[in-house]
Amino acid sequence: MFNKDQIFQLLESRDGEALRALWQGRGAVDIAALLDSVEDGARQAAVFRTLPKDLAADVFSYLPGPTQATLARSFADGELQQIFDALHLDDAADFLEELPANLVTRILRSASPQRRMAVNALLRYPADSAGSVMTPEFVSLRPGDTVRQALDTIRRTGIHKETVYTCYVLEHRQLLGVVSAKDLLTAAEDAAVADLMVTDVVSVGTLTDREEAARLLAKYDLLALPVLDGEERMVGIVTVDDAMDVLTEAAAEDLSIMAAVTPDEKPYFAASAWEHARHRVVWLLILMLSAAITGSIITRYEDAISAVPLLVAFLPMLMDTGGNCGSQSATLVIRGLALEEIRPRDALRVIRKELAVAAIVSAVLAAANGLRIYLQYHDSAIALVISLSLAATVVLAKLVGCMLPIAAKQLHMDPAIMASPLITTIVDAGAVLIYFQAAAALLRLPV
Amino acid sequence: MFNKDQIFQLLESRDGEALRALWQGRGAVDIAALLDSVEDGARQAAVFRTLPKDLAADVFSYLPGPTQATLARSFADGELQQIFDALHLDDAADFLEELPANLVTRILRSASPQRRMAVNALLRYPADSAGSVMTPEFVSLRPGDTVRQALDTIRRTGIHKETVYTCYVLEHRQLLGVVSAKDLLTAAEDAAVADLMVTDVVSVGTLTDREEAARLLAKYDLLALPVLDGEERMVGIVTVDDAMDVLTEAAAEDLSIMAAVTPDEKPYFAASAWEHARHRVVWLLILMLSAAITGSIITRYEDAISAVPLLVAFLPMLMDTGGNCGSQSATLVIRGLALEEIRPRDALRVIRKELAVAAIVSAVLAAANGLRIYLQYHDSAIALVISLSLAATVVLAKLVGCMLPIAAKQLHMDPAIMASPLITTIVDAGAVLIYFQAAAALLRLPV
Repeated sequence: MFNKDQIFQLLESRDGEALRALWQGRGAVDIAALLDSVEDGARQAAVFRTLPKDLAADVFSYLPGPTQATLARSFADGELQQIFDALHLDDAADFLEELPANLVTRILRSASPQRRMAVNALLRYPADSAGSVMTPEFVSLRPGDTVRQALDTIRRTGIHKETVYTCYVLEHRQLLGVVSAKDLLTAAEDAAVADLMVTDVVSVGTLTDREEAARLLAKYDLLALPVLDGEERMVGIVTVDDAMDVLTEAAAEDLSIMAAVTPDEKPYFAASAWEHARHRVVWLLILMLSAAITGSIITRYEDAISAVPLLVAFLPMLMDTGGNCGSQSATLVIRGLALEEIRPRDALRVIRKELAVAAIVSAVLAAANGLRIYLQYHDSAIALVISLSLAATVVLAKLVGCMLPIAAKQLHMDPAIMASPLITTIVDAGAVLIYFQAAAALLRLPV
Repeated sequence: MFNKDQIFQLLESRDGEALRALWQGRGAVDIAALLDSVEDGARQAAVFRTLPKDLAADVFSYLPGPTQATLARSFADGELQQIFDALHLDDAADFLEELPANLVTRILRSASPQRRMAVNALLRYPADSAGSVMTPEFVSLRPGDTVRQALDTIRRTGIHKETVYTCYVLEHRQLLGVVSAKDLLTAAEDAAVADLMVTDVVSVGTLTDREEAARLLAKYDLLALPVLDGEERMVGIVTVDDAMDVLTEAAAEDLSIMAAVTPDEKPYFAASAWEHARHRVVWLLILMLSAAITGSIITRYEDAISAVPLLVAFLPMLMDTGGNCGSQSATLVIRGLALEEIRPRDALRVIRKELAVAAIVSAVLAAANGLRIYLQYHDSAIALVISLSLAATVVLAKLVGCMLPIAAKQLHMDPAIMASPLITTIVDAGAVLIYFQAAAALLRLPV
């Protein structure tokens, strides 16, 4: 691999030739990773300037957004324009989104009108839409083309296209069918494209959720998915590499939300302690204050607690088990909703399933726990109270845990918000109420 | 889309022609989804038999494992052999893994020796290895080939290969370089493959973790990743569609483990209530019994509780906040480890970062909570006890939350195991201990 110090040395000795030799044969991904690890902005720009022109744009497109912005600020106008013009259209649009408005204006002013229009169109799609991740560059064929003509089209336009392996047959910009490069290569040269093309094409709209587009691409094992505008005209493709990034990001985002952390694209170490704290403290405050509700429920049972202080000893077990049961159900339902195995209209089926699971789980847990408490404290009344409360808490937790994510989906909210922390808080209050009511009734305690 | 009833009607009226017309132009993915939704096994087999031969194997490869096994049991030997022979080698190996041993023996006995060897080799790779997801079918070229010869090779062998868009240049089965179909198409016909190929090739070993292979493929935007055996000979490729499935499965698995559910590939509704209960109850039992430790800590402070019963009211808030803080840190570290943003040797950097975050978060939470309690109960001593305990709990939770996943990684365990439920249990015990000690000391309570 690379050695940062070696590169800095070559830089300082102004040994351009040795540097160029070093870049030779290295992949853009690895060079971008090296460049990103250089912490000093001036040094970063200096290293970047030693890259051969054809490699520079490629390396640039693999840099994280914030690093692109830092680099861009240290470039002269001419340099910036050169990079911008060499980027693929979708990468160019992503890049502009990272820049302050004055730089964006400056770059777009000197771009060609055609390029400006194309990039502007991409920038207008909502952040989570298929339009925002698509590239408007693809190989388009006419239905009357022969295989020979099609291969020529690939050769002519291929170099600048992100993927050339799926060709789209268009007439008046309407998508008639697709033909793969593999089919073109294995067909007779004078066969008509119209005879080879598959007409049953999976496509999405520009406003389709980008996660849905990525899932379709994965489901149908495609290399690229065509994107149509409101008038059914084909305007671009989502490629498999971008779809993979979308799915990875979506999974990471769900994970964050489920742990009550505001999602952030920045890597762990790249975010400052302040940023980390900001992304975590709001949810903690909300959850803390709602846990206070459980607290005030407890204060209503102070007399019961004074009478039997041992009751308090079982609170953590009841609350934790309730929280865990709730988050198990919530996680499975959130995952099912994401994979479209569960739809909101399946709510009743989910409830039936969770009730059946709750029956088995609560029987096992109540028995195990009742036995332990009886053996430990030799008090069958307390053992009975705990076992019954535990069983009721499990049922409550499973119900709340499975219903809240479905309700969120129905309300067009992200089901992941309804994950463990929120459910734990709700289930806690219920568990405490059930427990002290059961204790008061069965142990005849003052309330 | 399809209509199941319509298909059943055509089946009963034995209208083979209408059925064949129905399949015409439909994708294998959609037909597989329809077939999978047919609940009666005999009907499923009847529908499957109406598929044209060339489509049948494709549809079969898209069916979930258990459905494949059900179908296979209702096939005659000849039928089964025909399907098996038409499957891609990696799909064939996956299929065999779903079948009982006697069926596997029967199928392999009548397969060609070459095919039997290839499938057997695939079956020998560990379940989580790159070898287990690779396909041994790829386009291999010799360094002396011209572009024309290379394109001919693609044409000749392409139809049976899962991906033809990346060709591998081999000499004595050693990988010299790769050349893309795009480069071949745009190069002069008599150019040498050796001059076009890229020699800086990313590859993995057969025993590399399949998740790592999938991440490399995503990182370098590849369509296929070469897999080398122990002697550096190229034995197969992992294709981008399989890599996507691996990443999706891995994310779902992590999510399950983090919610204390034993991972299961089955869709939510496909698993019975018993199976769901089995995947959840073991962890619940373990966590429940460890929460009992927190309970026995509380019993040591019964005198303090009798003296100030109000103390109990703040237990849920302390425990929940501790659990939430811990799971925030744990989730971010687990994600960082999975994406290789964090390595075990970064442990000290992570601790420093989490301590800084904990300082900010605990200051905000302690202030907000102290103020609330003071306003609600007008008791500054209690407010102080809670605020201090809360701050200490946050620090403890962040430390435990960030260290346990790193420790697990260091011990070659799955860091996801160290997620919220386990951390909550540990932090709970600590929080209770801190709280009652602080209360006893500051409020001068009997212990």
